[in-house]
Amino acid sequence: MQSSVKRELLDILGPQGFRDDPETLVTHSYDGTPMLQSLPEAVVYPENTQQVSDVMKVLHRHRIPLVSRGSGTNLCGGTVPLQGGVVMVMHRMNKILEVDLENLTATVQPGLITKTFTEHIESLGLFYPPDPSSMAISTIGGNIAECSGGLRGLKYGTTKDYVIGLEAVLANGDIIRTGGKLMKDVAGYDLTKLLVGSEGTLAIITEATLKLVPPPKAKKTMVAMYNDLYDAARTVSQIIENRIIPATLEIMDRSTIRVVDEFAGLGLPHDMEAMLLIEQDGEPETVERDIARIEEICRAERADRVNVAQSQEEALKLLTARRSAFTALARLRPTTILEDATVPRSKIADMVVEINRIARKHNVTICTFGHAGDGNLHPTATTDARDHEEIKRVEAAFEEIFEAAIRLGGTITGEHGVGVVKAPFLEWKIGPAGIAAMKAIKDSFDPHHLLNPGKVFAKSSRKRVVIDRG
Amino acid sequence: MQSSVKRELLDILGPQGFRDDPETLVTHSYDGTPMLQSLPEAVVYPENTQQVSDVMKVLHRHRIPLVSRGSGTNLCGGTVPLQGGVVMVMHRMNKILEVDLENLTATVQPGLITKTFTEHIESLGLFYPPDPSSMAISTIGGNIAECSGGLRGLKYGTTKDYVIGLEAVLANGDIIRTGGKLMKDVAGYDLTKLLVGSEGTLAIITEATLKLVPPPKAKKTMVAMYNDLYDAARTVSQIIENRIIPATLEIMDRSTIRVVDEFAGLGLPHDMEAMLLIEQDGEPETVERDIARIEEICRAERADRVNVAQSQEEALKLLTARRSAFTALARLRPTTILEDATVPRSKIADMVVEINRIARKHNVTICTFGHAGDGNLHPTATTDARDHEEIKRVEAAFEEIFEAAIRLGGTITGEHGVGVVKAPFLEWKIGPAGIAAMKAIKDSFDPHHLLNPGKVFAKSSRKRVVIDRG
Repeated sequence: MQSSVKRELLDILGPQGFRDDPETLVTHSYDGTPMLQSLPEAVVYPENTQQVSDVMKVLHRHRIPLVSRGSGTNLCGGTVPLQGGVVMVMHRMNKILEVDLENLTATVQPGLITKTFTEHIESLGLFYPPDPSSMAISTIGGNIAECSGGLRGLKYGTTKDYVIGLEAVLANGDIIRTGGKLMKDVAGYDLTKLLVGSEGTLAIITEATLKLVPPPKAKKTMVAMYNDLYDAARTVSQIIENRIIPATLEIMDRSTIRVVDEFAGLGLPHDMEAMLLIEQDGEPETVERDIARIEEICRAERADRVNVAQSQEEALKLLTARRSAFTALARLRPTTILEDATVPRSKIADMVVEINRIARKHNVTICTFGHAGDGNLHPTATTDARDHEEIKRVEAAFEEIFEAAIRLGGTITGEHGVGVVKAPFLEWKIGPAGIAAMKAIKDSFDPHHLLNPGKVFAKSSRKRVVIDRG
Repeated sequence: MQSSVKRELLDILGPQGFRDDPETLVTHSYDGTPMLQSLPEAVVYPENTQQVSDVMKVLHRHRIPLVSRGSGTNLCGGTVPLQGGVVMVMHRMNKILEVDLENLTATVQPGLITKTFTEHIESLGLFYPPDPSSMAISTIGGNIAECSGGLRGLKYGTTKDYVIGLEAVLANGDIIRTGGKLMKDVAGYDLTKLLVGSEGTLAIITEATLKLVPPPKAKKTMVAMYNDLYDAARTVSQIIENRIIPATLEIMDRSTIRVVDEFAGLGLPHDMEAMLLIEQDGEPETVERDIARIEEICRAERADRVNVAQSQEEALKLLTARRSAFTALARLRPTTILEDATVPRSKIADMVVEINRIARKHNVTICTFGHAGDGNLHPTATTDARDHEEIKRVEAAFEEIFEAAIRLGGTITGEHGVGVVKAPFLEWKIGPAGIAAMKAIKDSFDPHHLLNPGKVFAKSSRKRVVIDRG
């Protein structure tokens, strides 16, 4: 970095807000995604919106790229500074600015850890539903950038359903405010929802107003084990067709059950093809009635065993085990690649069967778990980045998995984002006209491609593979 | 219209798909908004997406503007062909293409009447919550273009919360598909939500995939009357602070109560300052408990009388009366101007007081009713378009009302859209940087400004008035 630019940034941020020592550069050269690394030239730590704006004005003038980030837990390479430049870490902007009990809103800074926020909200007798598995580490700003989902998506929606207002800094340093403490607002295009999930490529989020809801009064958790994957998948569809929307409706395949059980010591049977983890919440009577009906449906769909948790501790143990799936799988081999191909709910069984077929074909280990109620699956390869030949097979397998998801009416990413990892496949989902429309939006917000360059859009789209059904 | 262009359009659409007789042109020169009229050169009636695309390609080549519309019930001048050109009426594309009971989605064409759709969905034991007051006449495509709200917004959200996939034709005739039957999809920018509420200025919607939900099992409706507006407003806040989210939470001021009662013959007292109309739905026990608690809250907040409807008929009569507010007010004088200034829920009383003060100051009649739970108020002026001096006063009053809404943390439009009527005021809400960002999106989608030109963005923004508090 030119010393004059460094001086300008130091003037804005002070010495505690700017670093370019090698340790800092290296620790901000990667994120939660395996096999991706690129060094920035500097790392900055703004403490207010004005500093973000002033920094962006300097970078804009010098045409230096910027990647804004929280804890970097994303799995799509979303915060790797591919083209160097400056990494902006939002951790110092981590305040809960206000909880408005009359309007049921909270206004927060982006660097706030999601779990810190949800715990504070719960202590006030309210509820912020989005619960990405990373929530103990990830930030609200990161969740907004990626439009994070979680286990409660089916009933409660994802991050985008709770962001009702934003303050953000544009590529030229201008500050915009969208939405507000308003349940209805149609004053122009919905910039709020456009920025949610835009992966730091359109603006730097500096403040968010979030919608809160009353918490459910009761909760109940249960597990059903199946000898046949299709029986489990049919159970998912049957629950919904019976007009029951559970708070959580998770699936694990055979290999995930085994690994999670070995990690968490739950005493689950290892010979089952699929497990459903189901939670319902709401009014006590509703929860009782729904869980009883779900139990009937599980049995009618030939569940081998059904177990309703008898205590909050037992329920928590089950949910914690599910949340630990990634960690448990990550212990198996040096590299874990967790994907999130998503299909219409009715196609889950077809998709899992496809994943297993593709894994066998390429001779790779892929365990699958995920949010069955959303059709949001997490096929996860346990592999070794040092074995280039194996990694090639893993990549080929995932390519076919994306292809299969699209073929089944699904998408290449349900909640992880496109980043750099899935950029070559975006066109498969949205077509060349969709890519052109999105690129036009990018160009209009950030004509010099300074904000998180190299993300979402690939230099060239991958050609679609022809599935060999042999 | 040049005869060669007409020939091209006739070739695409056939004689039943093209009209340019004076009667047709006149009947498509206005919409639900008073005092706005502009003649198109032709009216076209496509019957499929390919025709829409082909028409758009012709118009794009000749740089002829196009306004797509459904029933034209909007109140912001959203479908008036300000710059002539072609009006595209979507009524022939009115099919329910599919209701998917496994995935709880419906795929429909844009010209479908909303009420026809909701009745069909309800006959299948499902529920599509958005219920704009215009729903007996308006179309799903129009609802999407304006992001229509309705009486159920507080609990169920608005149109944007139910649109999960779109097919649309761009200004150059390209066809794009966004989203799908997917509860989670983060493959690139959220074009679906960007197109919802874009008022026909970015694309022509040709198909929509909508999310359905299980219907509530029970419903209960009640009315509370107040001598003091602030007591009613405090009741609204207290209900929410008690963690109850009613399905409907409507307010009417004194003058609206009288007019609606004279129209609907409900026997309401005419000496009350405010009336709340409250509906809760859900599981039977929850509904009973919530309504009982709401009754307590109303009494604690000094409601003069509280009446829970004893039958579905009585409840329906109350809701129908509320839905008739616009019609009832429209009988009073030749011109009715219904606005939708929206504030944070906690500011409703302040806003109604402001509206009354402003109406007195300008010596105009403004009745106010609306969705109190959303802070979405409908100050409605009964006036006479032929009296230019009075209309000037009405316009001055509304300008101050918008100003007041913004000052209270609100917005210029909660559910009606910007169109041409509120375009001069958009900058008050989103600032010059917000306008620039939205204009950049418009330019990127529609560089020649062919789609609904003259809407959303004004030639020049109105200067903010300085409120005279004297």
